[in-house]
Amino acid sequence: MALIVQKYGGTSVGSTERIATVAEKVMATRSQGNDVVVVVSAMSGETNRLVALAKSLADPPKAREFDVLLATGEQVTISLLSMTLEARGCPARSYTGSQVHILTDSAHTKARILEIDDKRIHDDLAQGTVVVVAGFQGTDAQGNITTLGRGGSDTTAVALAAALKADECQIYTDVDGVYTTDPRVVHQARRLDKICFEEMLEMASLGSKVLQIRAVEFASKYNVPLRVLSSFKEGQGTLIASEDETMEKALISGIAFNRDEAKLTLLGVPDQPGIAYHILGHIADANIEVDMIIQNIGADGTTDFTFTVHHNDYKNALTILQNIAKELGVREVLGDDSIVKISLVGVGMRSHAGIASTMFKTLADEGINIQMISTSEIKISVVVHEKYLELGVRALHAAFNLDEAAS
Amino acid sequence: MALIVQKYGGTSVGSTERIATVAEKVMATRSQGNDVVVVVSAMSGETNRLVALAKSLADPPKAREFDVLLATGEQVTISLLSMTLEARGCPARSYTGSQVHILTDSAHTKARILEIDDKRIHDDLAQGTVVVVAGFQGTDAQGNITTLGRGGSDTTAVALAAALKADECQIYTDVDGVYTTDPRVVHQARRLDKICFEEMLEMASLGSKVLQIRAVEFASKYNVPLRVLSSFKEGQGTLIASEDETMEKALISGIAFNRDEAKLTLLGVPDQPGIAYHILGHIADANIEVDMIIQNIGADGTTDFTFTVHHNDYKNALTILQNIAKELGVREVLGDDSIVKISLVGVGMRSHAGIASTMFKTLADEGINIQMISTSEIKISVVVHEKYLELGVRALHAAFNLDEAAS
Repeated sequence: MALIVQKYGGTSVGSTERIATVAEKVMATRSQGNDVVVVVSAMSGETNRLVALAKSLADPPKAREFDVLLATGEQVTISLLSMTLEARGCPARSYTGSQVHILTDSAHTKARILEIDDKRIHDDLAQGTVVVVAGFQGTDAQGNITTLGRGGSDTTAVALAAALKADECQIYTDVDGVYTTDPRVVHQARRLDKICFEEMLEMASLGSKVLQIRAVEFASKYNVPLRVLSSFKEGQGTLIASEDETMEKALISGIAFNRDEAKLTLLGVPDQPGIAYHILGHIADANIEVDMIIQNIGADGTTDFTFTVHHNDYKNALTILQNIAKELGVREVLGDDSIVKISLVGVGMRSHAGIASTMFKTLADEGINIQMISTSEIKISVVVHEKYLELGVRALHAAFNLDEAAS
Repeated sequence: MALIVQKYGGTSVGSTERIATVAEKVMATRSQGNDVVVVVSAMSGETNRLVALAKSLADPPKAREFDVLLATGEQVTISLLSMTLEARGCPARSYTGSQVHILTDSAHTKARILEIDDKRIHDDLAQGTVVVVAGFQGTDAQGNITTLGRGGSDTTAVALAAALKADECQIYTDVDGVYTTDPRVVHQARRLDKICFEEMLEMASLGSKVLQIRAVEFASKYNVPLRVLSSFKEGQGTLIASEDETMEKALISGIAFNRDEAKLTLLGVPDQPGIAYHILGHIADANIEVDMIIQNIGADGTTDFTFTVHHNDYKNALTILQNIAKELGVREVLGDDSIVKISLVGVGMRSHAGIASTMFKTLADEGINIQMISTSEIKISVVVHEKYLELGVRALHAAFNLDEAAS
C-alpha cells in the first residue's frame, strides 16, 4: 500500500464530465489499496472569468483581495470532486488551503509555502477517506488568504507529498509525459520513462512547459518522486526522480528550445574592469532579466559583449543600451530578435566528452551558423537564426539517437 | 459617530455596476463619520449556477461539500467589493465567515450562529478600515465551512451587529421599507417609518418576505435596531426596533396575507381525549407543518376538526386523512385549497377592544364569508375564499385608516 498524491490541472477538471472522470481515476487508485490525496486547480476558464470581474472594478486589484477572489476557483473544484466521490460511495473530504494550514509568507499572488500541517490529512487517510485539497492557495500567519502564482497547484501537490512523505506525486496534465523534445516540431520525439530532477529543471527552464520549475525544485529538494501523466490517455507517463543507476543510459535526455529570446550586442566596448557590471547594471535596474551572457576577450583594448533577454524586454533593453553607449565609449549597439536558443540536456554529459563537437558538427552539416554558445554541467545551448529551429532540432534529435525508432 | 452594519443582498450586488454603486453607498456612510461593517450575499444568479453544477454531479450533494461550494459565492462578492473600495481610496478588508470566526453548530446547509469573534473587526475599524464580511457562512468548531440556509446573510448582519454592539443594522434590499400591506394588492399601501419587532415577526411569518424571520428574532433578542432600505432608491426605509412611546399610535400596523395555505376538515370526529393528537400525529410523522388549528365543541358526541397546511403538502395530507378516517371513525374528510389567510397585525390590539368586530363587520359588509378565525395577542387571522383576497385586504386597509391619504 502506498500513499499517492495526485494533482489534476484546470483542463482535467474543466467540466462536470471531466470531474466525474477524475473521480473514477481517484477511485481506481484507491481500489488498488493506496491512500490518495488529490490536489485540484480551478476549472479551466474560471480563473479568467474571475480576473475579468476584478479588472472591471479595480485595475490593478488590491493583491490581498485578488487572492481572496482567485482562491474561490479551487474551492469550487474541491467541493465538486468531493461530492462526486461521496455520491459514488467513496468517502472524501475537501479542504481549502487555510483548512489544512498551508502556511505561506504574505507575498500575495506569489506566496511561498513555509509549512503544512499534515495531522488532519493523516487522520482522514487513516479512516480510508480520500482527501481533496485546493491547489494554488494557502494562508499567511495572520490568516489572510494567499495564492502561489502561476503553476501553484503543482507546487501545492509536491509540498503536500513532501509533508506527508508520499511515495509518489502524480501530476495529471494534458500531455502524457515528458518528451525528448516538442513532438510538434519533431514527430519522432519519444516519451521518456524516466528523467532526473536536474535534467527536468533544465528542460523546464529552457521552455518545456510540462511542469513548473518551482514544483520540480521543491520535489528535488525533498526528494519526492514526481510522475507526469495524461488525464485523458492511459499510460505510465514519465517519472522524474533522483539520478540513479536505473536511469536511461542515454548521453542526452532531451532537446529543449526557446523562441522567446532576443540578442543584444555591444561592439568595441573598452576592455576595462567593471564594464560588464556597468552594462548589466542598467539592464537590471529596468527589471530586465538576462539569460545568456558572452564576452570575447578583445585584442585592441576593446571587447564585444553579447547577451540575451526575453523577447518582451527587447525594445526596452535596446533603448537603454543606445542611451548609455556614448557614456561607456561603445562603438556600436546591435540587436537581433530573430533568434532561437536550442539546448541539449543530459546528465550523461558529465562523463562523456565529445558531445559539444558532435552538436556543432551536426549543425554545421546542415549549414546552420552558430551565433552564441553557452554551457553548463549538464547542458549545451546554442543561439541560431530562428529560421533554423526545426531543421536544427530535428538534426540533433536524430544525431543523438533520440528518435522513437531508436528507442 | 456611529457603528453601522450594512447588508446588501444578491440583487444589490448582482453585477459589477451594482457592486460599484454599493461601494459608493458605503463610502458615503463612512464619510458621514461612521464606522462601517458590510455584509454581502452572493451575486444574484451565482448560487443557482453553483447548485446546478453540484446537482449535475451528485443529487443530493453531500451537505458538508455543498456548503464548501456555496460559500464561494459570498467570497467572490467580498473580494470584489473590497477591491472596489480600495481602488477608490477607501481602506477595506474582506473576511470570510471562517476568518472572523463566525462559529456555528455543525448543521450543514442550515447552521446556527453560536459566537462571533469581534476583535479583528474592531481592530480594523479602529484604523478607519471598512470591514466586508461574507454573509450566509460560518465555520464549526472543527473548522468545517457551514452555511446558514435561506436568508442567512440577514442573520449574519444582525449577529455581527449584536456582537459589535452596532448602533444600527441596515438591510439593503429591493424594496424601500416595510409596507402596511403588499403595494401590488393595495395601491394605497403606505411605507411604515417604524414598526416593533413583534409586529415585524408576525408580518414576516404571515408572508411579508422583506426580512427573514430568524434575522428579526435575533435582532429582537439582542435588541439591535434594524432598518430596511432600498439599494436603488434614496429614503429612510423602515426602522424595526423595540416597542416604545415613539412608535406610531395606529391600532394596526399592517395587513399580511398568505396565499400558500390549504384547509383540511374532518367532520364527525368522535369527541374523545387524544383525538387531536391522533390526527395531527400522523400529519407530523409525514413532516408536514400545520399552521392554524380549530376544533369546535360537538353536541352529539362528535366534533369537527379543521387545520391548514402549506399548499405543497395539501395532497399528501389529504391522502393521509382519508387513510386514517375509518380507523378514527370519522364521518367525512373535506379539503379546500382555494383559500387565503388575511391577518391584521398590531401591538395596539393589546390595549384596544373592538378590533376583531370592526374586522368582521368590514368583511361582512363586502359579503365575504369567514371560514376560520384565529387570534393571538397582536394578530387576528381569518381564512376566506381566495377570490376575496384583494377585496378583503383593500377593505380592511381602508377601514383601519392605513391608506396613504390617511397618514
